[in-house]
Amino acid sequence: MSGEGGASRLGRRLLKVRDRFVAERLDGLLVTHGANVRYLTNFTGTSGALLVGTSTCRLVTDGRYLTAARALLAAPDGPPDTELVPVERSYEATVSELLAGTGWPRIGFEVAHTSVKTHRQWTDRVGQAGQAGAQVPELVETYRIVEQVRAVKDPGELSTLRRAGQMLTEVAGEVRRTLEPGQRELEVAATVDHTLRSGGFERSAFDTIVASGPNSALPHAQPGPRRLAEGDIVLLDFGGVHDGYCVDLSRVATIGPPTEAAQRLHAAVADAQTAAIEAVRPGAWASDVDGAARRVLEERGLGEAFGHGTGHGLGLEIHEEPRVARRDADRERAVAAGADGPLAPGMVFTIEPGAYEPGFGGVRLEDDVAVTDDGCEMLTDVGRDLWVVS
Amino acid sequence: MSGEGGASRLGRRLLKVRDRFVAERLDGLLVTHGANVRYLTNFTGTSGALLVGTSTCRLVTDGRYLTAARALLAAPDGPPDTELVPVERSYEATVSELLAGTGWPRIGFEVAHTSVKTHRQWTDRVGQAGQAGAQVPELVETYRIVEQVRAVKDPGELSTLRRAGQMLTEVAGEVRRTLEPGQRELEVAATVDHTLRSGGFERSAFDTIVASGPNSALPHAQPGPRRLAEGDIVLLDFGGVHDGYCVDLSRVATIGPPTEAAQRLHAAVADAQTAAIEAVRPGAWASDVDGAARRVLEERGLGEAFGHGTGHGLGLEIHEEPRVARRDADRERAVAAGADGPLAPGMVFTIEPGAYEPGFGGVRLEDDVAVTDDGCEMLTDVGRDLWVVS
Repeated sequence: MSGEGGASRLGRRLLKVRDRFVAERLDGLLVTHGANVRYLTNFTGTSGALLVGTSTCRLVTDGRYLTAARALLAAPDGPPDTELVPVERSYEATVSELLAGTGWPRIGFEVAHTSVKTHRQWTDRVGQAGQAGAQVPELVETYRIVEQVRAVKDPGELSTLRRAGQMLTEVAGEVRRTLEPGQRELEVAATVDHTLRSGGFERSAFDTIVASGPNSALPHAQPGPRRLAEGDIVLLDFGGVHDGYCVDLSRVATIGPPTEAAQRLHAAVADAQTAAIEAVRPGAWASDVDGAARRVLEERGLGEAFGHGTGHGLGLEIHEEPRVARRDADRERAVAAGADGPLAPGMVFTIEPGAYEPGFGGVRLEDDVAVTDDGCEMLTDVGRDLWVVS
Repeated sequence: MSGEGGASRLGRRLLKVRDRFVAERLDGLLVTHGANVRYLTNFTGTSGALLVGTSTCRLVTDGRYLTAARALLAAPDGPPDTELVPVERSYEATVSELLAGTGWPRIGFEVAHTSVKTHRQWTDRVGQAGQAGAQVPELVETYRIVEQVRAVKDPGELSTLRRAGQMLTEVAGEVRRTLEPGQRELEVAATVDHTLRSGGFERSAFDTIVASGPNSALPHAQPGPRRLAEGDIVLLDFGGVHDGYCVDLSRVATIGPPTEAAQRLHAAVADAQTAAIEAVRPGAWASDVDGAARRVLEERGLGEAFGHGTGHGLGLEIHEEPRVARRDADRERAVAAGADGPLAPGMVFTIEPGAYEPGFGGVRLEDDVAVTDDGCEMLTDVGRDLWVVS
């Protein structure tokens, strides 16, 4: 046991999840989404499930991860009151047996992370146990229980993300120094990925984007054989994973001196990003932050050119809550879907407005912020000037 | 139009999918799994859905990918008779509207790739359209329709995989030359990934495994700060993606001269791999190949030390059909689940037996093969000797 109130870090997370049991009338929650399982247990295997009860947990995993899981449960900062359940035959069979054997009336499962196939197997097998006379649980649909807890980072997570932001800042400087005219997009992407690794990241957080010339107008371009040529705008979007946590950055270069059009586009996006960053504070809505960026771009006649949302949460996943997107006319629906909501201290997300002109090129500037008690802290600290490569 | 019988490559794939419509009494199939959508359309965006009808298709995607999708549909080797449907509001809303508007009585969806949440949104919205008087489709559960077609590669895929195997062979040679005592697992993994990229791969096919000393006994170890030390077994497992297709290789090194125990383990696994490779031929069952490897290891007292299956299919995904695993007593169930079945020419998979001794270390040897008319072709061609590093 360590930290505040005698509860461990994982213990405090479990408490927050169990707080939701009351409103949803749950006796347990079956967590199957990998990032959610990791958040509650530190388990990093690619297959595993966690059954959270009101006072104990069971971690289900298969032969590949049993040795690692045993070490985890025995560790002082490991998951409290958690028992290991090895998979026999199949995950579905083991989980179903576990569910049927609890005697708990209502057990939640994660609708967004359970396939129709898996759900059918659970209900069929649990139903069979019921026909055989056991008192079996009702499987209750739940949505975003662990995700909402994860949206507010605890002090340990914030310090990991802060360090990751510093590392990404250094990587960006190194990437800037290595850019040269004539390089192929794919080469530049390989260099970015290598720089992320030599800069201390476990791996890239997503497929690095290097989009040159007209390709930069495609917000999700894949790097190809195209060579960086005089006059090009080059959009770079990359991120790394440090201790499991993701950070994300975008910057824009021009090959040779920027054209006036490129400068105008860049200045508009930089102003939009500044406005969005200034709008971040506890109690503001995520969509207010998006609105601040969008207003600047609309004023410059670039409203149509900004076709995506302003940002996304960062943590164990590269895209998580909060979503920072356009306001929905139906606010209640947006809140229920996790598409909008009030910001709270400890939330961490990207701010990445962009403007794209098909055939010409695009600009996106992206940094990572943490909401503080009275505004925000920048996790990345990279100059926002256009990188001029010659 | 090009190739055999006047049908294009994508047209032939669609024909094979539509062949399944009869047995399943379908008027259409909604394909939502990314690799399946790509296989049938060449579309490489991360979000998209394809509604396959008996003579036409609709490709649904969002603003990020519309420009790329339009170019694809206009390309001479693009998907035949396919119309683009841009997402409005949300994928669920657009897909539901599309489904409800078809007038088709029965439309299949992919149970293994549809979440309970998405399925509920489709059925609710389609149901509402039905209440409003429209004749709406029944949504029918389907499993592995496109996956089974994908399991047998066409000539173009085989030539891509052959080239990828050659590239991986070269990368392995380069990796072998760069190994040195004292390197950290994470450094070695970074070098492997960089070598994959400079060797022409788009990216690594999965998180590279570098497991040294006792870590090599964990079949799915993650590389860490541990340094390669005298006497270590080092297990390397890596792969690359070329033109969207995955290849995969494992080799084992020792730091300094191998101990007798390491040599014995390595020889046993090499013999098991040879036996498995010799068992590959059309008509043999996938589980026969597994059995051939398993028998060798059992004879050496290493049956318990081999806790995973012998291989997995390779293609647009790093794990796909066929699965090459232990025979199931219930053969019919195994076939229905895609866990076993007869091999056919054009199937491509890994052969990767291993033996792991907790606390000591593990050995796995992995190569990639294609089933031919009378046996198999090795796609990777790397010596299977122990790599001795000094």
